[in-house]
Amino acid sequence: MSHNLLKGKRGIIFGALNDMSIAWKVAEKAVEEGAMITLTNTPVAVRMGDVSKLGAQLNVEVIPADATNLEDLEMVFEKSIEILGGKIDFVLHSIGMSPNVRKKRPYDDLDYDMLNKTLDISAISFHKMIQTAKKMDAINEGGSILALSYVAAQRTLFGYNDMADAKSMLESIARSFGYIYGREKNVRVNTISQSPTMTTAGSGVKGMDSLMDFADRMSPLGNANAEECADYCIVMFSDLTKKVTMQNLFHDGGFSSMGMSLRAMDQYNKSFDQYKDEHGNIIYG
Amino acid sequence: MSHNLLKGKRGIIFGALNDMSIAWKVAEKAVEEGAMITLTNTPVAVRMGDVSKLGAQLNVEVIPADATNLEDLEMVFEKSIEILGGKIDFVLHSIGMSPNVRKKRPYDDLDYDMLNKTLDISAISFHKMIQTAKKMDAINEGGSILALSYVAAQRTLFGYNDMADAKSMLESIARSFGYIYGREKNVRVNTISQSPTMTTAGSGVKGMDSLMDFADRMSPLGNANAEECADYCIVMFSDLTKKVTMQNLFHDGGFSSMGMSLRAMDQYNKSFDQYKDEHGNIIYG
Amino acid sequence: MSHNLLKGKRGIIFGALNDMSIAWKVAEKAVEEGAMITLTNTPVAVRMGDVSKLGAQLNVEVIPADATNLEDLEMVFEKSIEILGGKIDFVLHSIGMSPNVRKKRPYDDLDYDMLNKTLDISAISFHKMIQTAKKMDAINEGGSILALSYVAAQRTLFGYNDMADAKSMLESIARSFGYIYGREKNVRVNTISQSPTMTTAGSGVKGMDSLMDFADRMSPLGNANAEECADYCIVMFSDLTKKVTMQNLFHDGGFSSMGMSLRAMDQYNKSFDQYKDEHGNIIYG
Amino acid sequence: MSHNLLKGKRGIIFGALNDMSIAWKVAEKAVEEGAMITLTNTPVAVRMGDVSKLGAQLNVEVIPADATNLEDLEMVFEKSIEILGGKIDFVLHSIGMSPNVRKKRPYDDLDYDMLNKTLDISAISFHKMIQTAKKMDAINEGGSILALSYVAAQRTLFGYNDMADAKSMLESIARSFGYIYGREKNVRVNTISQSPTMTTAGSGVKGMDSLMDFADRMSPLGNANAEECADYCIVMFSDLTKKVTMQNLFHDGGFSSMGMSLRAMDQYNKSFDQYKDEHGNIIYG
Repeated sequence: MSHNLLKGKRGIIFGALNDMSIAWKVAEKAVEEGAMITLTNTPVAVRMGDVSKLGAQLNVEVIPADATNLEDLEMVFEKSIEILGGKIDFVLHSIGMSPNVRKKRPYDDLDYDMLNKTLDISAISFHKMIQTAKKMDAINEGGSILALSYVAAQRTLFGYNDMADAKSMLESIARSFGYIYGREKNVRVNTISQSPTMTTAGSGVKGMDSLMDFADRMSPLGNANAEECADYCIVMFSDLTKKVTMQNLFHDGGFSSMGMSLRAMDQYNKSFDQYKDEHGNIIYG
Repeated sequence: MSHNLLKGKRGIIFGALNDMSIAWKVAEKAVEEGAMITLTNTPVAVRMGDVSKLGAQLNVEVIPADATNLEDLEMVFEKSIEILGGKIDFVLHSIGMSPNVRKKRPYDDLDYDMLNKTLDISAISFHKMIQTAKKMDAINEGGSILALSYVAAQRTLFGYNDMADAKSMLESIARSFGYIYGREKNVRVNTISQSPTMTTAGSGVKGMDSLMDFADRMSPLGNANAEECADYCIVMFSDLTKKVTMQNLFHDGGFSSMGMSLRAMDQYNKSFDQYKDEHGNIIYG
Repeated sequence: MSHNLLKGKRGIIFGALNDMSIAWKVAEKAVEEGAMITLTNTPVAVRMGDVSKLGAQLNVEVIPADATNLEDLEMVFEKSIEILGGKIDFVLHSIGMSPNVRKKRPYDDLDYDMLNKTLDISAISFHKMIQTAKKMDAINEGGSILALSYVAAQRTLFGYNDMADAKSMLESIARSFGYIYGREKNVRVNTISQSPTMTTAGSGVKGMDSLMDFADRMSPLGNANAEECADYCIVMFSDLTKKVTMQNLFHDGGFSSMGMSLRAMDQYNKSFDQYKDEHGNIIYG
Repeated sequence: MSHNLLKGKRGIIFGALNDMSIAWKVAEKAVEEGAMITLTNTPVAVRMGDVSKLGAQLNVEVIPADATNLEDLEMVFEKSIEILGGKIDFVLHSIGMSPNVRKKRPYDDLDYDMLNKTLDISAISFHKMIQTAKKMDAINEGGSILALSYVAAQRTLFGYNDMADAKSMLESIARSFGYIYGREKNVRVNTISQSPTMTTAGSGVKGMDSLMDFADRMSPLGNANAEECADYCIVMFSDLTKKVTMQNLFHDGGFSSMGMSLRAMDQYNKSFDQYKDEHGNIIYG
């Protein structure tokens, strides 16, 4: 059911790959809520992924572009303004990748060229996108810019590797640019820190299955899924959140505020079942 | 313009006093968005304030009740369910008062009976309200409970006094109960940390004028007003935020993420104008 | 080995019960580091516990007093100044108790008189202690006041119950009073947020064993013990931390900054061992 | 007065430039506390600055090296171990520089090659230093690694520019590596978030004078100076803080926990003096 929350608004969605992507769901919901949008992803992703299918389905244009390349970014904003018939009201940055993770380089054996790529793709691209938009004056007063983040920006999760540092930087960019774009054009910049989500990107993270199970049992409402995340993005693009800026908003069923849940502890305790004495006390090794 | 975000939902609004109140604006917007609501405030507030006018205006019932009294709370939920024709979907707690502030007792000369009252009214009432609702099973699965807070819960502002400690406790209650009500009934509990707002309650705080000016110049989007806060409350009551729980959400134009803005610093620097030497350097005393 | 970090300083230690108590270790180390101290605990605790033994061992005086009682607090400061021969330099607040926890009242069935007791004993006593000291001008310029807290102030742990809300309030009091006592007398006020510790108080918490095991495996350095905590307290009382105030300092082997460790996850995964298929994949129910 | 807190320990101090540097004070105090140390800075800094003087004064060796260069880092650890006669116990990273700040490129007109340099010098160098040390197994069990940070990692301060993002990343690296180095070698990694300090680096920041004045009036204990910061570093290197890791420790006179102080507000209000009506109320423009 549509609420017409984005009626007449123009948006750009970076990072939809396939129907598991959060950006994919955001695109669908944004259109449903009355927005006109363009989609963009790297040329490779456009060729390999299903984003063209999504474009056809929603009857919106797909613009192949590298979000780490300033000319490409300029072209994305230029074309989007042209196609959509006016300045942009909202932007989603759903981009992240670590060559170190892909190549299974552990955090204490990082390749620094790869780290630079991780940062460029996963964090600096957000700055480039905003700086480009601001220089072009491509975003309307009261516009909303959003990036997707993860709790690893605050707390270490084994295996998340240099993506944690990239997410910390991403959230810092949201604050730093939120201040400047806010004071000058009333444009707000925020990040949503989403539950672990079984997207194509997420599935690359080591031990993702167990982590998702643990997070689910820790969170009183369970893990948030991609569709629910898309709902929250819509809200952040709408006029109902015009004074929210420079924030990192946890969308995680409560995980970020949990120290230990009964449900996770119960499961954890099962691991000791075979090590219990006749009184049910754990036998420590 | 209504988005029908609360269509068919039933809510209770605690704490509307007059048309400066945030709760007042929330009530208006909730009805506009399709909700059926009841209003409640203390018998004294109902007599002295304009809440009956609001009830008449919105054609909703006003239930006089003391939110620190368990029987009264039970009665509020009972009556509301009866009047609205079913279980409750959302609740707003907009209640806070410090006798120490009123009686101008500074923080290093607190009266401890008064401190107990501050806590009972401003924080424990939130626990009582939720505990009562849960025992009565008065709230629907997926319901949303919200309280209003202030950044003083994290950072000290002179003159805010024991209300800072009450707000810290209030936010803690939101987490503690958010866990339990979430795991058992999928009910979410959050707080919104709002800009300083010139309500009747706010106007009691020492140096409120200067504080609001400073906060406004620090915040890239300026202070958020009561109406904008009401929009954010609506969003948090809607089905678009179903996985957000145990969070304190800053609604403050960016203030909470600011260390120092150019605009506030410029103003601050004017204070030294008469103390500058011929080179424009500040002459320190 | 002593470093003479507290040479010539006078301190009061609230809350030593027996040799498992953190306050007990702090007392021992403070004396070792050259401080003169007094010990205080409730009359019941003095009768039932071993604090008199500690007093004898350290050759220091034990002052029975109820930390929720203003006259008693005044008496503690008065006597301590008299016994120690001058104003006080440091104070440790290691006090906490929840009748709701003791009586096994779950968080959604709190007894509110008991909640008031929890708050009075575990949080407000800290305010009373500081207010009393300040009114008597009992603490030297540059003095250091410290209370012990727990991560439950920020994140919900099942079973910790209303103590979480009390700890949140305790940390807020440290900030609120840290501001005032700092600006007027250069006295600093902080809290140390300690790993779960198997003290007499800790052992009352539901599922303490499992929680400690989990926390230990989550923390890269393992749980911090009482003796290590005492070391940190000494540091915070010394002149080497004179500009640290209004802070909550985690002393927890890294727990507070962890999302998930390999070691805890490995253990967690063992719980599924019997539910794995022939390929080692977890069979979800 | 020495407490022999670092007796027999071996340390490396990165980043001392002249006697305003925090690293300079740390070097002096470390030696005073019984440590054997080496000093290192870039070849240019060694030539231009006074670090050789410090080396002579303390009778310790100065190793010119570029902290962004892996071979140089390896050489620093190798030589230090050789010179000091054993593995290292503590390391200070006091390194930060932004070409964008130097070249007055505002945050919405960053040069991205310069941003990469900012990150490499101010954040990634910390990772490189730790990774190098760990690969060489250059640090003793129980060792302590420390970097200096600033509150801009959490809150935006105009003019601090891309250094804010670098500091966010720096603190993230401390957590990420703190987990790994902790679990494997009991080495702790922390950052100290220091008051604005009038070092050579600090003096490059726009509006530093006013900012320091404001921070000083906001902080109940006033700004912390370089010498006091050095004391705190010593404490973090000592065996008294062995279970503190992955933390960002504010050393700022209370600034980070302040929303508004009376003293700063009083000063702020003077700026309106000429805009007050006959009743003393501010006349807003």
